[in-house]
Amino acid sequence: MSIETAELANGLRIVTDRVDTVQSVSLGLWVDVGARHEAEAENGVSHFLEHMAFKGTPTRSAFQIAAEIEDIGGHLNAYTSRETTAYHATVLKEHVSVALDILADILCNSTFDEAELDRERNVILQEISQAADTPDDAIFDGFQTAAFPAQPLGRPILGTADIVSDLPRRTLTDYVGTHYGADRTILAAAGALDHDRIVDLAERFLGDLGRTGGEHPCPARYEGGDWREVRDLEQAHLAIGFEGLRFTDEDYYPLAVLSTALGGGMSSRLFQELRERRGLAYSVYTFSSSYLDGGLFGLYAGTGPDEIGELVAAAGAELARAAGEAMAGSEIARARTLIKAGALLSLESMAARAERLAMQMQIYGHTISIEDLTARIDAVESEDVRHVAERVFSSKPVVAALGPVAGLAEYDAVAAQLR
Amino acid sequence: MSIETAELANGLRIVTDRVDTVQSVSLGLWVDVGARHEAEAENGVSHFLEHMAFKGTPTRSAFQIAAEIEDIGGHLNAYTSRETTAYHATVLKEHVSVALDILADILCNSTFDEAELDRERNVILQEISQAADTPDDAIFDGFQTAAFPAQPLGRPILGTADIVSDLPRRTLTDYVGTHYGADRTILAAAGALDHDRIVDLAERFLGDLGRTGGEHPCPARYEGGDWREVRDLEQAHLAIGFEGLRFTDEDYYPLAVLSTALGGGMSSRLFQELRERRGLAYSVYTFSSSYLDGGLFGLYAGTGPDEIGELVAAAGAELARAAGEAMAGSEIARARTLIKAGALLSLESMAARAERLAMQMQIYGHTISIEDLTARIDAVESEDVRHVAERVFSSKPVVAALGPVAGLAEYDAVAAQLR
Repeated sequence: MSIETAELANGLRIVTDRVDTVQSVSLGLWVDVGARHEAEAENGVSHFLEHMAFKGTPTRSAFQIAAEIEDIGGHLNAYTSRETTAYHATVLKEHVSVALDILADILCNSTFDEAELDRERNVILQEISQAADTPDDAIFDGFQTAAFPAQPLGRPILGTADIVSDLPRRTLTDYVGTHYGADRTILAAAGALDHDRIVDLAERFLGDLGRTGGEHPCPARYEGGDWREVRDLEQAHLAIGFEGLRFTDEDYYPLAVLSTALGGGMSSRLFQELRERRGLAYSVYTFSSSYLDGGLFGLYAGTGPDEIGELVAAAGAELARAAGEAMAGSEIARARTLIKAGALLSLESMAARAERLAMQMQIYGHTISIEDLTARIDAVESEDVRHVAERVFSSKPVVAALGPVAGLAEYDAVAAQLR
Repeated sequence: MSIETAELANGLRIVTDRVDTVQSVSLGLWVDVGARHEAEAENGVSHFLEHMAFKGTPTRSAFQIAAEIEDIGGHLNAYTSRETTAYHATVLKEHVSVALDILADILCNSTFDEAELDRERNVILQEISQAADTPDDAIFDGFQTAAFPAQPLGRPILGTADIVSDLPRRTLTDYVGTHYGADRTILAAAGALDHDRIVDLAERFLGDLGRTGGEHPCPARYEGGDWREVRDLEQAHLAIGFEGLRFTDEDYYPLAVLSTALGGGMSSRLFQELRERRGLAYSVYTFSSSYLDGGLFGLYAGTGPDEIGELVAAAGAELARAAGEAMAGSEIARARTLIKAGALLSLESMAARAERLAMQMQIYGHTISIEDLTARIDAVESEDVRHVAERVFSSKPVVAALGPVAGLAEYDAVAAQLR
């Protein structure tokens, strides 16, 4: 068994995956905090902290952080999601100690210098503008808000320009104090590593990190509804969604198979119907987002302003068909094979291995072997997929549209085509 | 030595890289044809052909192509660049024969059915619209045109909506006849493979492909100049460029080091100056594109409408500094290390290995070992980097701008800040 776990006295959990056939190690710190932990007035603070982690500690300036990792040919990166903030690095195996030293330093000791903070505020405002200008980013913020209105889970991860412009240093430091605890942090690493050495290094660099206690965010309350923005674009961007499933739902794996069969590849039903048979879209795909206590399932397509009506009707017919009739065994088998092969292929990436382990520890408290995952996927039958389609598609839909979408029917008329 | 080459009687070249520690094989066919081989009236035909390759052969419908590869958990994809069209797949090792059978079939036997062609025309028109709506895609078409005006190398890879709307089937079939020859095709594969078996399979599936003879595209004539589009966006997108270097230029490796030191990572000069010290941009990076007989070097940044002037001045100062003073040895060493580590890490991806080999065969006619690459990078000294900066930045610049850019100075005033 190449996967091993450990826990420090302060509650920080460690999971490692030793792979002797590569020269590199990917490792990172996954903190159980994200946009859904934010109060309305501090929306964007999780992401702001992710940026500020690169701006200096008592022993390293922002430039030193960048230069130290790049001097050894490594990469340092970070991301913020609704439930997680991650800081990760990929380095050649001989440099794992340097990488963990830097990751721990930026997590535990960032100084949040006021001048750096104001400069980074401008960088984030540019990032917000860039997302707003990119239609297939912008539509998903509207989509999320319509799915989970008036609650943290529905707000943008980047925050709003208004809030970010004024967010005080004190909000950041308070937020760190409340959420950045050893008991809410997972160190995951994969590659050419030695588990005991990683544990020793973690003890040295992260052993003094305090606990903050579990924080239960505001529960996910899916509502569904409408979001539109008419904008002068060539394409009408459309995202249609439904209440999805939490990670631990008994229908989680059937939903994964449904998502793949409907919109997960070139042979999928929506790709074949909307793109191959009707030529309505270039990009068309399904997505399934899960949270600890809820989820979102949906499809995205970009089409022409005069084709929106046909696209909605054709997509709706495919959803109804998936909920109405069990798919052929061969179609289910293909979706299962795609998911299993995708999981096997992803094992060749050390970064993907480390992230998968961190997510599993955060969600389930233990890792899931590839054999176990395979068995769960193989257990999904046609009727399970039909059942989960019926269950998911019976929720009140989200309809999000951006671009030349004035011709899109009223919400109720669109929703009526989606059942 | 894990890399082996072979050549079929029809001139098709084969390069394989055996990696026993993975379960997968990535393989593809790289054809020496792209947008720069197109006459003006047929702009977009290379890319159109790439799409039509998935639309049916005498023995496989479009759906069968998709289903057959996905039945074995594989992925099939393709891309078109200015000099190359590539069709590639990743599969588990036991399915390599199926993958090569499909790749060869779509390359050699596509039927270009008229009804499929008209449907795919609409899909491509949607792809063109999507690229036009995405600012950091759209600016690069304008950038390329300003660099190489009135010649194939300056035209968009996707073609224009006007041309794609009317492109007749005959143009596609003629283009295949002119360019899709065994003597212009490379089969590259990396992963859990056996070289002799790949050669046998290639003989079986591709042995009958005819020759078309070499085709020398219209030479690259770099001119430089101005391209702007005022558009209602939040960010001003800016791409500044210079005449770059062909793959075989003696300064190719010094330019790679310059690009990395200027804008290749968090510690790079432009990232530090424009983002970290001035907070002007979220995305800022350099790029260096090479062709068989020319190149383009440039930088991209997205900023606020009121900050364009400061950004141009600050970027120009960094370019002048790089051309005026040799960089410190530590800075050169860091850039060299980043490039070498990046190359080593990319070896962990079978798809990256296969593509790298195909490109090397196409450009140099032979492969380049990682040791040789390392030696060439290590041979780059500070003065080489300063020299190539002076050489490249003395060309007439390209200034491309998209968004709220009405406040950007006239071309001559911008260009004067870039020397």
